[in-house]
Amino acid sequence: MSLIDKNLIAAHNDRLLRHVNNDYAHLGEQLARRGIDIEAVRAKVAAFGVAIPSWGVGTGGTRFARFPGRGEPRNVFDKLEDCGVIQQLSRATPTVSLHIPWDTCSDWSELRQAAASHGLAFDAINSNTFSDQKGQAHSYKFGSLTHGDAATRAQAVAHNIECIEIGQKLGSKALTVWIGDGANFPGQQHFRRAFDRYLESAQQIYAALPGDWRMMLEHKICEPAFYATVIQDWGSSFMAASALGPKAQCLVDLGHHAPNVNIEMIVARLIAAGKLAGFHFNDSKYGDDDLDAGSVAPYRLFLVFNELVAAAHEGVSGFDPAYMLDQSHNVTDPIESLMTSAAQVQRTYAQALIVDRAALDAAQDANDALVATQCLKRGFDTDVTPILQRVRFDAGGAIDLVGAYRASGYRQRVAEARPAVAGGGGGIV
Amino acid sequence: MSLIDKNLIAAHNDRLLRHVNNDYAHLGEQLARRGIDIEAVRAKVAAFGVAIPSWGVGTGGTRFARFPGRGEPRNVFDKLEDCGVIQQLSRATPTVSLHIPWDTCSDWSELRQAAASHGLAFDAINSNTFSDQKGQAHSYKFGSLTHGDAATRAQAVAHNIECIEIGQKLGSKALTVWIGDGANFPGQQHFRRAFDRYLESAQQIYAALPGDWRMMLEHKICEPAFYATVIQDWGSSFMAASALGPKAQCLVDLGHHAPNVNIEMIVARLIAAGKLAGFHFNDSKYGDDDLDAGSVAPYRLFLVFNELVAAAHEGVSGFDPAYMLDQSHNVTDPIESLMTSAAQVQRTYAQALIVDRAALDAAQDANDALVATQCLKRGFDTDVTPILQRVRFDAGGAIDLVGAYRASGYRQRVAEARPAVAGGGGGIV
Amino acid sequence: MSLIDKNLIAAHNDRLLRHVNNDYAHLGEQLARRGIDIEAVRAKVAAFGVAIPSWGVGTGGTRFARFPGRGEPRNVFDKLEDCGVIQQLSRATPTVSLHIPWDTCSDWSELRQAAASHGLAFDAINSNTFSDQKGQAHSYKFGSLTHGDAATRAQAVAHNIECIEIGQKLGSKALTVWIGDGANFPGQQHFRRAFDRYLESAQQIYAALPGDWRMMLEHKICEPAFYATVIQDWGSSFMAASALGPKAQCLVDLGHHAPNVNIEMIVARLIAAGKLAGFHFNDSKYGDDDLDAGSVAPYRLFLVFNELVAAAHEGVSGFDPAYMLDQSHNVTDPIESLMTSAAQVQRTYAQALIVDRAALDAAQDANDALVATQCLKRGFDTDVTPILQRVRFDAGGAIDLVGAYRASGYRQRVAEARPAVAGGGGGIV
Amino acid sequence: MSLIDKNLIAAHNDRLLRHVNNDYAHLGEQLARRGIDIEAVRAKVAAFGVAIPSWGVGTGGTRFARFPGRGEPRNVFDKLEDCGVIQQLSRATPTVSLHIPWDTCSDWSELRQAAASHGLAFDAINSNTFSDQKGQAHSYKFGSLTHGDAATRAQAVAHNIECIEIGQKLGSKALTVWIGDGANFPGQQHFRRAFDRYLESAQQIYAALPGDWRMMLEHKICEPAFYATVIQDWGSSFMAASALGPKAQCLVDLGHHAPNVNIEMIVARLIAAGKLAGFHFNDSKYGDDDLDAGSVAPYRLFLVFNELVAAAHEGVSGFDPAYMLDQSHNVTDPIESLMTSAAQVQRTYAQALIVDRAALDAAQDANDALVATQCLKRGFDTDVTPILQRVRFDAGGAIDLVGAYRASGYRQRVAEARPAVAGGGGGIV
Repeated sequence: MSLIDKNLIAAHNDRLLRHVNNDYAHLGEQLARRGIDIEAVRAKVAAFGVAIPSWGVGTGGTRFARFPGRGEPRNVFDKLEDCGVIQQLSRATPTVSLHIPWDTCSDWSELRQAAASHGLAFDAINSNTFSDQKGQAHSYKFGSLTHGDAATRAQAVAHNIECIEIGQKLGSKALTVWIGDGANFPGQQHFRRAFDRYLESAQQIYAALPGDWRMMLEHKICEPAFYATVIQDWGSSFMAASALGPKAQCLVDLGHHAPNVNIEMIVARLIAAGKLAGFHFNDSKYGDDDLDAGSVAPYRLFLVFNELVAAAHEGVSGFDPAYMLDQSHNVTDPIESLMTSAAQVQRTYAQALIVDRAALDAAQDANDALVATQCLKRGFDTDVTPILQRVRFDAGGAIDLVGAYRASGYRQRVAEARPAVAGGGGGIV
Repeated sequence: MSLIDKNLIAAHNDRLLRHVNNDYAHLGEQLARRGIDIEAVRAKVAAFGVAIPSWGVGTGGTRFARFPGRGEPRNVFDKLEDCGVIQQLSRATPTVSLHIPWDTCSDWSELRQAAASHGLAFDAINSNTFSDQKGQAHSYKFGSLTHGDAATRAQAVAHNIECIEIGQKLGSKALTVWIGDGANFPGQQHFRRAFDRYLESAQQIYAALPGDWRMMLEHKICEPAFYATVIQDWGSSFMAASALGPKAQCLVDLGHHAPNVNIEMIVARLIAAGKLAGFHFNDSKYGDDDLDAGSVAPYRLFLVFNELVAAAHEGVSGFDPAYMLDQSHNVTDPIESLMTSAAQVQRTYAQALIVDRAALDAAQDANDALVATQCLKRGFDTDVTPILQRVRFDAGGAIDLVGAYRASGYRQRVAEARPAVAGGGGGIV
Repeated sequence: MSLIDKNLIAAHNDRLLRHVNNDYAHLGEQLARRGIDIEAVRAKVAAFGVAIPSWGVGTGGTRFARFPGRGEPRNVFDKLEDCGVIQQLSRATPTVSLHIPWDTCSDWSELRQAAASHGLAFDAINSNTFSDQKGQAHSYKFGSLTHGDAATRAQAVAHNIECIEIGQKLGSKALTVWIGDGANFPGQQHFRRAFDRYLESAQQIYAALPGDWRMMLEHKICEPAFYATVIQDWGSSFMAASALGPKAQCLVDLGHHAPNVNIEMIVARLIAAGKLAGFHFNDSKYGDDDLDAGSVAPYRLFLVFNELVAAAHEGVSGFDPAYMLDQSHNVTDPIESLMTSAAQVQRTYAQALIVDRAALDAAQDANDALVATQCLKRGFDTDVTPILQRVRFDAGGAIDLVGAYRASGYRQRVAEARPAVAGGGGGIV
Repeated sequence: MSLIDKNLIAAHNDRLLRHVNNDYAHLGEQLARRGIDIEAVRAKVAAFGVAIPSWGVGTGGTRFARFPGRGEPRNVFDKLEDCGVIQQLSRATPTVSLHIPWDTCSDWSELRQAAASHGLAFDAINSNTFSDQKGQAHSYKFGSLTHGDAATRAQAVAHNIECIEIGQKLGSKALTVWIGDGANFPGQQHFRRAFDRYLESAQQIYAALPGDWRMMLEHKICEPAFYATVIQDWGSSFMAASALGPKAQCLVDLGHHAPNVNIEMIVARLIAAGKLAGFHFNDSKYGDDDLDAGSVAPYRLFLVFNELVAAAHEGVSGFDPAYMLDQSHNVTDPIESLMTSAAQVQRTYAQALIVDRAALDAAQDANDALVATQCLKRGFDTDVTPILQRVRFDAGGAIDLVGAYRASGYRQRVAEARPAVAGGGGGIV
């Protein structure tokens, strides 16, 4: 069962294919001049995928307000349907990452089947101990894994272990742990004791990990805590992951850093230490803005991918990062944002792939900073659109993502099926 | 009618008064050695007041979650009661600032009477065009005063004019205009056109201002829009206030600036231009954290007050800023945070008052940077607690704010009267 | 007289021309599909120029050290020669901007002839009151135009007026005023008085401006003063320029802002107010890093050009910004950095020119944020290299800037003629 | 031999002593009410010392200019004399930290004697591989310990080992390693390879450490490299120190972090890991401003000391940080700045000492954020000036540091003995 009519996609592609082929051929010639085989690049791009977070297909909001869109998904099955559309058209998002308890359902095998019917599998599973659920025995207002009260910590640990169990039913291979624990006032929290409690709780979760699973620790400089967070940066994340063991690694969310921080450097450090779990892609100008990946600072994203491609190129042992989008779509149709963001990540990957690494190495060795940086820029300046279009076309996707999606009428269809949701103020009210 | 039993306050004060008097006398001696009359300082501090925002007495939250406290106010009358407690104990918060439509009620004169019965008057009134209300004809998802659609702008203008009308019924003398308008994507908004629309809308509101009112424009660098906001900094705010006319001035919220920005310099510029409307006090480490005033960077707050005291000292014409707290209390009892924050603002004012301005002027004239900065530090390092305690005691308030409040059992009392509120996820869900 | 052998350039171009023409033709086809005439774009790019600062051709340094390169220019004539090479190869840098007294010489008409012989004219002239010169009567340690001492201010004013006189001899039409005045300690400077003195001094300079000149005020958030600067942001710059009169405008240096600040928004505001003087292009990651333009955040540069192209497209009256590079070349051959930076600026201009403005307007009007931002991205993602190559070739420049320059042996030649310069510690020693 | 006449100090103190004793007595009463013994606090403050960097007594500068003061020290003996004055008056700076080769001299035992005659000993020794020295075989333009060229690395390693040898002659027990290595362009440096080379070089230095020495690694986010530095943050520093061994620890310079970073959290992490080497104290508003300690953000300094006092209070094993000032005095007399900064550090230490840690623990355990933060504030708000004055007086120092120093005429005396130094442009010229 296809969510979008295949004939519609085919018809849409037909009108564009001649130009795509023409552009692709010319780009192939250009790259050949530089000694690069476009087919090899295409194969790598075709093999690349980025996970969709289930919560990303709903309209996001801020603490001030949320303005819902039409056809908001009502439950995890609706979310999977929307993810299915993204994958059908983009052919770059083969997996979905769930958030528990937001995505709780009564029949996990039914869910797995639903996913499979849309061509989707399950990526890392995410626990939630940063908000309280109805009927919860202990509140996370003052922390979860690091709470001063042992029973609250135990509850948070148990929730994470439950997430692992759910993930096992779905075929996930990783648990992502992000906590909102921290402090809003100097003195509120004893920094060293809170970190010790974090380690103790995390060790209990770690102990419950299946042998082929990873535990991905996600750091964040601030928000929801605004004076201090417990896992505030990659240093604390690395310290914790080292203490836990080889299955624990550090997840990098591009928006979770202090201003000006050189993120690609952090990526390089984690790669060298065998501790890079993967990424939450998004973009930001001010903080954890959760804007669409590459929408504000595309070269920053490229410099991250440059580290990734270099690590693969050099065969760094154990290098195997997970990729996920993690964005808040407040003013766009989430499906459109997620499709174009996945394509942006693919674009960036392709640009990094066509960097001449031998020339780059030589320039670095010669301290030829200008030529070294131009090696990167030459990759970045190349318009790799034809590669992306061909990869999508070859896999049955849409050459023109937004055009085909809008033509399909999918949003209108689900808007009719799914009742309108009221907006409202955010957390400040 | 007193919200807190006067006898309880008196008994509480009794135990502390001897020490307060002793400390006050010694501080008086110390200040006398520096040529400062403690009584003059005390009189100025006693005359100082800072407004409480009605929304501040409810527990705040983030886009991730809100964890309500006990006895959350159910409506504007409950809020006034909480504000009354703050004023009764602190004697530093004689006015309340309302937010419409959050504080809408059916009988404004009843509200005014209720306020008066708690010893409260009304400060600036705040409009809200950053979230949608039920039944609203046009959504603010894509802007309000700057929206591309004329009908949406007209609705936002009408709402502001309605706020003025409500304010007139309550005795307010100012309208504060903060909008969430902006963009999440480069290109989403035409910067110049959006600003032109802002001016056009603001002029219509300005035209409806009573003769003795002010319109206070509040700038903010980001949030809820994360790529660009329309009134992003004091430069745009100043440009707009200049275009509107003399009744329009610029409001400075301490948390609305880019990292590292020298806020006291901005205050100085606005004072010089006759465009300083006043302040929203709070503190921050990362962004618009809305932490308690002076809780993270007390010297920054002092440097702002140094500009204010200097301007008053030098008799800058037209200098008359409005003071309000604007904080989000996520992990404390809002009443406790607001009382101690008001006291922190008083403390800072007192510290700035005891700066030796003649010595400071002389050091500045002599380019004696070290002595100049020590003049400020000497004020800041002085423990003015006895002055604050005496000012409160003299006015019938509590020497020990939190101690007396906790002893009063007020929170327990309202927790019984007001039903518990469910927490929940914030805007991201 | 050519600094680089024309035959060498021609031979170098010959090997590349076939590919350039091929790529240009294909790009022309692609753009035609989007309704864009590549020839119109080419003509605009060909007419575009960016000034070279004379100090840019020397190796820069930091307060920690300076590591000179080979063949450092010894005087303004050497600097002009290096600028001549940049212009001969890049054909995008027809003017030079001098800094007085660094570029003082005994015969200004000889200098003007020397410039003309290299195909160069003179752009804005820059005064220097941020460092002391030998034999100077009054030190600028504690300020220049804002100094508390009237004689020091008068000296600084006189220097600026002298700069205007020199500029008139050279054909300049603008004076750029950047001061280092500020404070390193809270209290060191009386903010309002310092600003008043700035205005008073600036008015005297303004009064000496020829009728067809502009006075360009340059703001900077910090450095060399580290607690506060007098013209700290565009708000103060705008306030000053407004007070001075129509010939005073605000210059935007991309590295002079607080972290995260939306610079393109500032550009839009200054355009709307008729106060945009122009730009100092460079790039930065942390502060006023003075890195090569577009080397770290090329999309940020693009978003600035998007505002410029939009203003020209819409025919904003009086819109006529000046363009200059202002970079510190610490680890590269300055000539190479300046050539490639000029090309980067050209590239960005070309990318902004091919944005479909009608489609962008339509998307903005429809609140279609996703399509609006894609309009920008489509321009940015386009590889406009063939246009730049053709523009250079057509004008007699080098298709491959760095390749031709290195082949020319120019650096080796001047290294022999110009004695080696010792490096050394910077200001901290 | 005293640098300042003891009688002058005594006479100066005499005039102030009565008030000091009076204030001290009253503060003692106030603290006693809180259960704090002022004598115990006084004893700890009296035992506290902070090292003076030899380079700190010269006037600092920026890349734009350096404006020398009068009586600039000509060599390390002059510097020691100035440090002797600081110690004689402040009694808080018993050690000096040298920088090689800036402080190279021909007779180290003579230097040690000179120091002893001023009552000074030697703290950590600092290597310099961030600038080139005359006659140096290999340039550090493109790196030192991380340079791609083995011979350059070897030279940098040898220099560090020479520093250890010098330090041994002087009684130092630590080597501080800060490098300027990094990149100004994306791609210039291979991040992982550069870090590997750093580790390899550092291991060679580490191997040469005497058994009772420490190697203190200093991280810095930027400057002099402006795109990336090799030891960019505490994470990389911690990674390196862990790889090197127990004698390697991480040094925290307060100005070397990204904007907004919570430094006290980093301090807590390093304490927990047994990796806190110590501090370079200074203050900043924008970057590595090297302003006087506590001059801009005194509460930030307090929060750092709160971690230190807590660690000592809790008896964290191996906790033994080194304290040094590291400031650039561009507009003040360096002796005055260093004396008052040492006193500021003492003040902050005293404020942290009088925090009620039992009450703080209880508040933290009860999630009473408001009371917890007030425990800190109560310490910070206390005016501990009388303690500092008494500590100085008891040890033979000056109650009024700047007053006594100015009265001594020391600066005038050395200005006559030491020839005036020309100012000049900084590194950018």
